[in-house]
Amino acid sequence: MSKAPRYLALADEIGALISKGALRAGDRLPSIRQTCQARELSAATVFQAYYLLESRGLVSAAPRSGYYVNAAPRHSAPPTSRPSPEAGPVAVSELVFEVLGASSAPALLPLGSAFPSAALFPLDALRRATQAGMRRLEAQQITAELPLGLESLRRQISLRYLRLGLQIAPDEIVLTNGALEALNLSLQAVARPGDAVLVEAPGFYAALQALERLGLHAVEVPTHAGEGADLEAMARLIAKHRPKACWLMTSFQNPLGSLMPPDKKRALVALLEAAGIPLIEDDVYAELYHGAQPALPAKVYERQGQVLHCGSFSKCLAPGYRIGWVAPGRHLRRVQRLKLMSSLGVSLPAQAGLAEYLQGGAFDAHLRRLRATLCSQQQAMLAALAQGLPAGSHLTRPQGGYFLWVELPAGCDALRLHRQLLAEGISCAPGPIFSARTEFRSSLRLNCGHPWDERMQAGIQRLTALARGSN
Amino acid sequence: MSKAPRYLALADEIGALISKGALRAGDRLPSIRQTCQARELSAATVFQAYYLLESRGLVSAAPRSGYYVNAAPRHSAPPTSRPSPEAGPVAVSELVFEVLGASSAPALLPLGSAFPSAALFPLDALRRATQAGMRRLEAQQITAELPLGLESLRRQISLRYLRLGLQIAPDEIVLTNGALEALNLSLQAVARPGDAVLVEAPGFYAALQALERLGLHAVEVPTHAGEGADLEAMARLIAKHRPKACWLMTSFQNPLGSLMPPDKKRALVALLEAAGIPLIEDDVYAELYHGAQPALPAKVYERQGQVLHCGSFSKCLAPGYRIGWVAPGRHLRRVQRLKLMSSLGVSLPAQAGLAEYLQGGAFDAHLRRLRATLCSQQQAMLAALAQGLPAGSHLTRPQGGYFLWVELPAGCDALRLHRQLLAEGISCAPGPIFSARTEFRSSLRLNCGHPWDERMQAGIQRLTALARGSN
Repeated sequence: MSKAPRYLALADEIGALISKGALRAGDRLPSIRQTCQARELSAATVFQAYYLLESRGLVSAAPRSGYYVNAAPRHSAPPTSRPSPEAGPVAVSELVFEVLGASSAPALLPLGSAFPSAALFPLDALRRATQAGMRRLEAQQITAELPLGLESLRRQISLRYLRLGLQIAPDEIVLTNGALEALNLSLQAVARPGDAVLVEAPGFYAALQALERLGLHAVEVPTHAGEGADLEAMARLIAKHRPKACWLMTSFQNPLGSLMPPDKKRALVALLEAAGIPLIEDDVYAELYHGAQPALPAKVYERQGQVLHCGSFSKCLAPGYRIGWVAPGRHLRRVQRLKLMSSLGVSLPAQAGLAEYLQGGAFDAHLRRLRATLCSQQQAMLAALAQGLPAGSHLTRPQGGYFLWVELPAGCDALRLHRQLLAEGISCAPGPIFSARTEFRSSLRLNCGHPWDERMQAGIQRLTALARGSN
Repeated sequence: MSKAPRYLALADEIGALISKGALRAGDRLPSIRQTCQARELSAATVFQAYYLLESRGLVSAAPRSGYYVNAAPRHSAPPTSRPSPEAGPVAVSELVFEVLGASSAPALLPLGSAFPSAALFPLDALRRATQAGMRRLEAQQITAELPLGLESLRRQISLRYLRLGLQIAPDEIVLTNGALEALNLSLQAVARPGDAVLVEAPGFYAALQALERLGLHAVEVPTHAGEGADLEAMARLIAKHRPKACWLMTSFQNPLGSLMPPDKKRALVALLEAAGIPLIEDDVYAELYHGAQPALPAKVYERQGQVLHCGSFSKCLAPGYRIGWVAPGRHLRRVQRLKLMSSLGVSLPAQAGLAEYLQGGAFDAHLRRLRATLCSQQQAMLAALAQGLPAGSHLTRPQGGYFLWVELPAGCDALRLHRQLLAEGISCAPGPIFSARTEFRSSLRLNCGHPWDERMQAGIQRLTALARGSN
């Protein structure tokens, strides 16, 4: 994994030409065939590179004609956020419940949903695997393996880590009731009430709620929509607040979709290790990358066992099964005990089903389909947003996950827009729920994890029309 | 439910004759037929009464000959416990983990286990129900019903409450990852760190660990092996410590097996309501009664919505599925929110499977078999213990559940005995793990939820021999 794959090098090279202006809007890229010959690359490699450039919004494919450089997007990426540099208690939970409660009616167009469409998942195959996995289970395992969870499932997770170059043994993995429990247990393992915790701004509301519930103080780190948390700012905040933990989504962050580049992840780990601060790395979107290669987690760079890496099958395979995990490094024993005390074990039918499914070998083919679908849905939604958003809006173009983040011009009130949309049968996730201090008042998170159809198109049209009107 | 059933009235009447000495050891009870004629009762009713007397250890059946009054048991019930009347932080967790960790090897004879044998459960039928229930689930339900849990399962739980005379609507029930999460959420809903909480002594170790983890102080209530917590003592402790919650197992308490009589449950609720103290009623053994009728929970007597009633399918139907619930009364909204923040929803395959199984109608027949099996296993273990325990021991004779509590003569060291037994391949649950202050140093909890066979018999023989030797 030490060297960047060829397709990525090619994509980065062409991307640099575009950003320098050497390639301009409307220019045609060399054909796949020409590039193969010129570079001595396989067609698959060149195709992957062009596909990645397309997913980054830099080029578009014209059927039977080739790839063309896009016009510079009408809406640039949001600037790095500028949260308050103070530490303080979190008070967002009430607002989060209010917004989520109002947004949960199944009839709503789910632009505010946290989940991708369940139709994208192999529900039938999972059901059959659950039946087979339970049949294979011996009665004694039910109570004997309950506290730690099925060894067969932890082994499958361990094998997936191995593909990333991480050697994490099955008994170093704690299965949890979804990644949310993993996050809660991790925070409890390393921080006490009143402690300060570094978080991204904007950040995942459930993490903010966890801080609030556990009496922890949030220190919000300026965060860039492309590359994630600002490490220089983080270093200053560490010196000022002496936080006891750092909670980040290093790949395809919720809500920004930011992806910390490998060198930056390495620097993040070095910074936190030097300060003795555990990193709770929430990596639940890890499998949903648009390119051809996974984004390695920061965990691969650690040397002190201080990274608690949290994962989940809820977003990539089995929604509703509620199987997550944490590889807590040196905090293993404490997390195991907290888990035993909080909810004992994890539901066995779900564990047995996932272990069986993963052993069966169909996971990677499912993931390839899922990634392609999510990527194409994202492009469709981006195109619709680009047409309709008011001038001065900012828009993310994530390289994975299924969230878009829109910053409307100052003066647009996202909570008001949220209520207007609800009245028209459309949900969205307004910016203030992603902030310890209810900032991001003109921003929205939109879910592009649902099939792109006329109803979605009409919903985005209505959203952008309201946004233009409210400006 | 207002009038005691006839079989119970008959059993109580005969039991009273025995305790007054009007019927003596070796006396033959009137035959089933004689009693039917004399009392104008059905044979089934008389049989149930005699069966109940047998389960209470008062009479024995001699094949083809009838029922005879037993000699007074060699080992009387333990006296009411006398814990310290002070409130204080709990520090038992480390010991609990040490003991449970050492006791978890599957090869051990599971006298210390917290679970009944998985062989007693309808695992095949559950697996088929899980398959069918998942097939019936629509994709949209997976995310839409995730936060609150499947309505179909909550409806089945609501229907079972209705059979007890309790009207609890499906949307007043919060599904949880086993009763342990229900307990943790309930404690967090009504108490803050530093608050005092009333608990039984001895009491379930996981509840004590929950207090420790949440920074709550335990106020241990003197508890009787037959009738549960001493309400006069509780009233004094309330006046002294102003506790913010009371956590009790009112029926078939773990570890004592005590069953609070109905009038006492009513008085308990009145006492707590007068003091404004929420009751967290942990009722996970509710379905495992030995008699012909369920024990009603204290919840039936409440008038203020202050009883948080916790239940589970783990002990009576589906071990490892990790489906519990709480009916939190007026604390519903707070418990729902804590649940959402802690672990979002509960695993769907398990929910769908249980809903399907319960709708299918086979649950009651399973429960009848399970109760009869647990009752007969208990009698066999009681007989073996009666033969071997040292003089001066006390022994419970619970009317439900699957735990026996043995108080060995003062001087016997339960933790030492625990280690000696482990070395011989036998687990047990030593008394100190059931105490906020590691009291009950000469007591053991034994599990009679496993099939009675030669290995169990040899294990009990070895245990009693060591107990005699260590005296």
